[in-house]
Amino acid sequence: MATPASKIKFREPQIEMAHGAGGKASRRLVEGLFAPLLFGSNPGPLGDAAHIQINGTRIAMTTDSFVVNPLRFPGGSIGELAINGTVNDLAVSGAKAEAIVVTYVLEAGLSTEVLEAEVRAMAQAAEKAGVRIAGGDTKVVEHGKADRMYITTTGIGRLLPGIAISPQSVRPGDKVLLSGPIGDHGITIVLARGELDLQADLRSDTRSVLPLVQALACQAGPDVRWMRDPTRGGVATSLNELARDCGHGIVLFEEKIPVRDSVRGACELLGLDPLHIANEGQFLAIVSPEHCDAALHALHATPGGEEAVLIGEVREQPPGMVSVITPYGGNRLVDMLVGDPLPRIC
Amino acid sequence: MATPASKIKFREPQIEMAHGAGGKASRRLVEGLFAPLLFGSNPGPLGDAAHIQINGTRIAMTTDSFVVNPLRFPGGSIGELAINGTVNDLAVSGAKAEAIVVTYVLEAGLSTEVLEAEVRAMAQAAEKAGVRIAGGDTKVVEHGKADRMYITTTGIGRLLPGIAISPQSVRPGDKVLLSGPIGDHGITIVLARGELDLQADLRSDTRSVLPLVQALACQAGPDVRWMRDPTRGGVATSLNELARDCGHGIVLFEEKIPVRDSVRGACELLGLDPLHIANEGQFLAIVSPEHCDAALHALHATPGGEEAVLIGEVREQPPGMVSVITPYGGNRLVDMLVGDPLPRIC
Repeated sequence: MATPASKIKFREPQIEMAHGAGGKASRRLVEGLFAPLLFGSNPGPLGDAAHIQINGTRIAMTTDSFVVNPLRFPGGSIGELAINGTVNDLAVSGAKAEAIVVTYVLEAGLSTEVLEAEVRAMAQAAEKAGVRIAGGDTKVVEHGKADRMYITTTGIGRLLPGIAISPQSVRPGDKVLLSGPIGDHGITIVLARGELDLQADLRSDTRSVLPLVQALACQAGPDVRWMRDPTRGGVATSLNELARDCGHGIVLFEEKIPVRDSVRGACELLGLDPLHIANEGQFLAIVSPEHCDAALHALHATPGGEEAVLIGEVREQPPGMVSVITPYGGNRLVDMLVGDPLPRIC
Repeated sequence: MATPASKIKFREPQIEMAHGAGGKASRRLVEGLFAPLLFGSNPGPLGDAAHIQINGTRIAMTTDSFVVNPLRFPGGSIGELAINGTVNDLAVSGAKAEAIVVTYVLEAGLSTEVLEAEVRAMAQAAEKAGVRIAGGDTKVVEHGKADRMYITTTGIGRLLPGIAISPQSVRPGDKVLLSGPIGDHGITIVLARGELDLQADLRSDTRSVLPLVQALACQAGPDVRWMRDPTRGGVATSLNELARDCGHGIVLFEEKIPVRDSVRGACELLGLDPLHIANEGQFLAIVSPEHCDAALHALHATPGGEEAVLIGEVREQPPGMVSVITPYGGNRLVDMLVGDPLPRIC
């Protein structure tokens, strides 16, 4: 089963920060090296969670490592991210998290107080999300061989009834819904590092999106075509992946995309597009045009979904690409994230 | 649900290497901090894998981070360990691994060649163990914030029929079986680091023990009371945990315990007991006296099980402790591993 070298298309000599940023470089690494070696010849679209059959029961499973710096920031911390991120990856794959296992890689010398705070944050986030923490593992490495702590969470979940999402089900005319303002998490992390001479009353949006996903599934069920939580790489990267996978074009209406003034200001300073900034408590959904209004109503009626909004639609043109229509009628293509302008945001 | 501070018994001010060594300090951290916060008030015995029910199907789930140094060593590498370790944790909990998800924390600047070798090693180990790699995640941290690469694997598995193991089922008179020589892995790692002025023709024992566990389950089924792969902390730590959990004494016959000369020699130099050295391809089983011979025959008839041996038995005395009877009739207590004499061996 030795994979022929020809299938390995990743030719970069070494790993750079951008390979972990969730954008184009990450995709080259995953599709060029990991997928051909680990996932066989036909990995299919690489979604947020794998679906696995055991004794006839279909289970969703997802895993993520968290290396965010700093560990604590306004609105959250690495422990909360580690639980919510995994709950959300399952949720947008159409599953309710049932159990999470966790590993810690700790740097020798880490203060117990710092560790305890994160373990508490995980317990609280898990309770809030209704998921059980079922086990774990701890490794300690020498001082200087990690940055205080890295956390890995893996969740398994039960599929929500009446919902079956896939990029292939997306059709021209479908609507793009977004659960709330974008960029809060990524910009909060940058500000928390103190690298920008900028202060803003901003908090990470980290939270479980499961209640919103459940409301959507309940109201629009089979008319929910696809969902994704736009974390690393932001809304632009998630939608570019969808456009590529479904083969249609995605058009966004710029004035509909909710961005707080402080996020917009920081993005202008940094020369970044809010569409590329990571979120930890928002999700995108593609819904049939017939069920779009009902879906939005369902989101608005659910606590935390009040700011949900229609931001665009699926069109035939330009195939495989994402474009933004500006308020003045202009039109620009938005690519996936390139490089790693904001490292270690989750 | 805030956990009262009184339940948190871990009072050490900071994390030390020993807290990741799998011995007494690890147990203090898990039982004193993680368990009360994460696993609720009644975590039960902390086994190798959690058993979770989803839609009526019982699933075993386990997770481990791997930080072994060096990445490659005679007989194996971090990638192989990461697959086999998770397959084995499921196997000794009575389950066959069905799917594994993997995360990488990579240090910026890591050579692609080194990464590719480990991804290949994982693919090969997974194929050999008959388990599918279903997904993953990659994070990159700055140069100097990790030691080349850390890998986390999480596996879910199907329970093997006809076997149900638990410390509570262990009875005085039961026999202690061991699948083969101990200490090869831990000593191989120490020698590979070149820290000892010693050379030996020794290889890590890393492998999947699933075929051996399946042979045992097939032959002795419900008479297999308990199993464990004695990794960090070695045979002594695993059996001390069992003794504590079942409340009986465990007596080992020293001359029956298979230890290669090179392992014994290195242990003498290091002042360590082979019973405390980590293994990655061996397992312990407690079997009823009636089925002990049949179980040993089944192991001997399975490739890789030729050196399986009876090393001891469960007795009423001394309750909760492990003792070793020496060839001259002497008797010594063997405790769990204390400290971290061989850091980062997995």
